[in-house]
Amino acid sequence: MTMKFCSNCGSPVDYHTPDGDDRPRYVCDACKTIHYENPKMVVGCIAEWEDKILLCRRAIEPGMGKWTIPAGYLENAETVSDGAMRETLEEANARVKIISPYTLYNLTFISQIYFIFRARLMDIDFGPTEESSEVKLLAEMDIPWDEIAFDVIRQTLVSYFKDRPGGVFDFRIVDITQR
Amino acid sequence: MTMKFCSNCGSPVDYHTPDGDDRPRYVCDACKTIHYENPKMVVGCIAEWEDKILLCRRAIEPGMGKWTIPAGYLENAETVSDGAMRETLEEANARVKIISPYTLYNLTFISQIYFIFRARLMDIDFGPTEESSEVKLLAEMDIPWDEIAFDVIRQTLVSYFKDRPGGVFDFRIVDITQR
Repeated sequence: MTMKFCSNCGSPVDYHTPDGDDRPRYVCDACKTIHYENPKMVVGCIAEWEDKILLCRRAIEPGMGKWTIPAGYLENAETVSDGAMRETLEEANARVKIISPYTLYNLTFISQIYFIFRARLMDIDFGPTEESSEVKLLAEMDIPWDEIAFDVIRQTLVSYFKDRPGGVFDFRIVDITQR
Repeated sequence: MTMKFCSNCGSPVDYHTPDGDDRPRYVCDACKTIHYENPKMVVGCIAEWEDKILLCRRAIEPGMGKWTIPAGYLENAETVSDGAMRETLEEANARVKIISPYTLYNLTFISQIYFIFRARLMDIDFGPTEESSEVKLLAEMDIPWDEIAFDVIRQTLVSYFKDRPGGVFDFRIVDITQR
């Protein structure tokens, strides 16, 4: 969202490169506040149960009607694994135990950092929520590849099923620079 | 920083839990904008040269006069490794090649996520900058343990010198929940 007014004093802000800086920022000429903007982290997990993983059909935009893994914005004062567990509870009503970090995606075109874990479902008492119209355990052959909501999630699932036969899931960093 | 005015319409904001939410946010009753706040990422690296690593003496607060590794806020549209390289250039006038991700620290008490890499110095043409009064290559025995600027950096260095004899630097996630 574009910033129009200073959140400190309410004056209109200007957008320019401050002295000694190397990129434009929202700057308040009245109270001299520089409003820095930084990437947001999205945390989520691939939740496993036997040979299946948990997918959610999105009940809200973006990607309404399509499938994804549980993931969402990290909250203040939260650890990345706590955030991934919270999102899994909120979106799939499912409880998980984190296994290990799996992939960090740099989504530079939208200034988001996705941090995806592997996790184990604690029970199969999951179900639909306000954010998910349907929640399912799916085997690899049943993944709806043409109906995955986000490219970053499709890439996550492709890597996961490529790694799984070997049983080695090394942590990696992947750049996605355009939509 | 506390938000006092709506950055979208300039009206004073209120702080309360929006309908359907589970935690308080800055909310504008005039234009109905909810202002979400999320953790910021700090990226940096342990830059190696032979058996030494690069430390910077801080020329600015916080921690002025004390030592740290190059690290700073990730910028919009930047990858985590590009951010670590940029900070190393800005703070130490040093060029590095990233080796691998080393540690993610959850600093829940200040809502920061530190993401630290191991890196290799490309040359030893480094030096002081506006942010660092002194930049040095130091062997383990010369690390000024009592003058490290931040606890998260002290912990990073302790882990690093513990891992180094074995030559295995597995990526890990560590929580730091209080100052």
